[in-house]
Amino acid sequence: MTTTNPRPLILLTNDDGHSSRGMAALIEAARPLGDLLVVAPDGPRSGYALSITSTAPVAVRTLRRAPGLAVMACTGTPVDCVKLALEQILGRRRPSLLLSGVNLGDNASVSVFYSGTMGATLEGCMKGVPSVGFSLRDGARDADFAPCVPWVRSVARRVLAEGLPTGVCLNVNFPKGAIAGLRVCRAARGNWTSEWVASANGRGERVYWLTGTFENLEPHATDTDMHALDQGYATLVPTRADLTAHNLIPSLGHFEATAPPCATT
Amino acid sequence: MTTTNPRPLILLTNDDGHSSRGMAALIEAARPLGDLLVVAPDGPRSGYALSITSTAPVAVRTLRRAPGLAVMACTGTPVDCVKLALEQILGRRRPSLLLSGVNLGDNASVSVFYSGTMGATLEGCMKGVPSVGFSLRDGARDADFAPCVPWVRSVARRVLAEGLPTGVCLNVNFPKGAIAGLRVCRAARGNWTSEWVASANGRGERVYWLTGTFENLEPHATDTDMHALDQGYATLVPTRADLTAHNLIPSLGHFEATAPPCATT
Repeated sequence: MTTTNPRPLILLTNDDGHSSRGMAALIEAARPLGDLLVVAPDGPRSGYALSITSTAPVAVRTLRRAPGLAVMACTGTPVDCVKLALEQILGRRRPSLLLSGVNLGDNASVSVFYSGTMGATLEGCMKGVPSVGFSLRDGARDADFAPCVPWVRSVARRVLAEGLPTGVCLNVNFPKGAIAGLRVCRAARGNWTSEWVASANGRGERVYWLTGTFENLEPHATDTDMHALDQGYATLVPTRADLTAHNLIPSLGHFEATAPPCATT
Repeated sequence: MTTTNPRPLILLTNDDGHSSRGMAALIEAARPLGDLLVVAPDGPRSGYALSITSTAPVAVRTLRRAPGLAVMACTGTPVDCVKLALEQILGRRRPSLLLSGVNLGDNASVSVFYSGTMGATLEGCMKGVPSVGFSLRDGARDADFAPCVPWVRSVARRVLAEGLPTGVCLNVNFPKGAIAGLRVCRAARGNWTSEWVASANGRGERVYWLTGTFENLEPHATDTDMHALDQGYATLVPTRADLTAHNLIPSLGHFEATAPPCATT
């Protein structure tokens, strides 16, 4: 006879760090659902995407152990956190769920590509763990995460119960303030413009700070995450860990015929 | 009357840095095709994916100007290089093509998600520039890039002539050694395992180095990049800047009904 722990193991991470207010909200939301292991960066890693630390070692230290909750800080990237948790910290134990966030600032539209919070979510997905990333469309230091908490909990509870299709994770974004409901959407096509602010370093040399203005390239579409967020809804975008444009493969066959092995010009 | 420069402007970058041997191969391949602007990291940025530098400024300096070739080094990530080149260095001029690579080590299968070389390629694609990333399946310091050069040139020439579909870039990988031909493929499903080597820092504290063994999860499939590379072919995977799992949106509607705005448990 085998006994199973009735409390699922849930892995938590993000890109704002273990001490961020978004992580506190994530812990609050997930605490009733299972035993939590937090392995999160030791500081801000916004915009780290799926980056991995390939040129330096990473370290992890335990900050807190309480019943049903362990918190560890990692010197690496959000994806490093997931890889370390799954292989080195948990070993043969498998989490039932990975939750990432709650990110300070939304990760709708193309921002999903740059987000460390969604990088960690995609990594969990590629490792076969049902994974959900959460982000709040408010980048202010005093952003109010409280309205997100019951929604994080209900989405997490559903994914715990149902799982997710193989190779697919969820990108959930919350509007600022009251949440009118939840919409299943596609990511809007968008573009960041005016991305650099020129400045000077301490020696008077020119440096650039990354910033930017988001431009929704399909402002009239009503099935996008940007549209639903604009209407005060939380958004859920099924996000696949597969970049191949499968439908284009048949139309590119001429590339096979024309690349010459002995081209000299 | 307006005159147009008959030589197209081509933007070059990678994640191994401006001084890498892969960049020398890329320049050699592209030199006959147009005027080249290299904006590449000032050192190795392997595994940087689509990361952006959000917490520090970045700087760029010109290393070399020759007829038809300018080389600049950037302190940021591969994606920063592309963003800086397009907005600050080129301004209103638009490159006809972005080439990234040639990466030391392949970016087939899931490695496309972690690759800085492909991160820069996807960034170019999102900015509307026809973009191609190139990688060599050989991570040795003395890897031979020479067989890649004519293939890089012929693929680049074709994309210059034909363009690429909106939102799609190309991920081209070369086998080690002789190249039997080119195959249009999809990315294989795969998984990195045994990713960490435990070590110690100078104070004797445990640290981890990222490494890993690649596992092809569909070794019998014959339409994947891993299979074609194994057979000695170069591979071309059409790669889309869109992570939405569009086909799953209809099946997730029940999420809309069940996330309660007033959940208290």
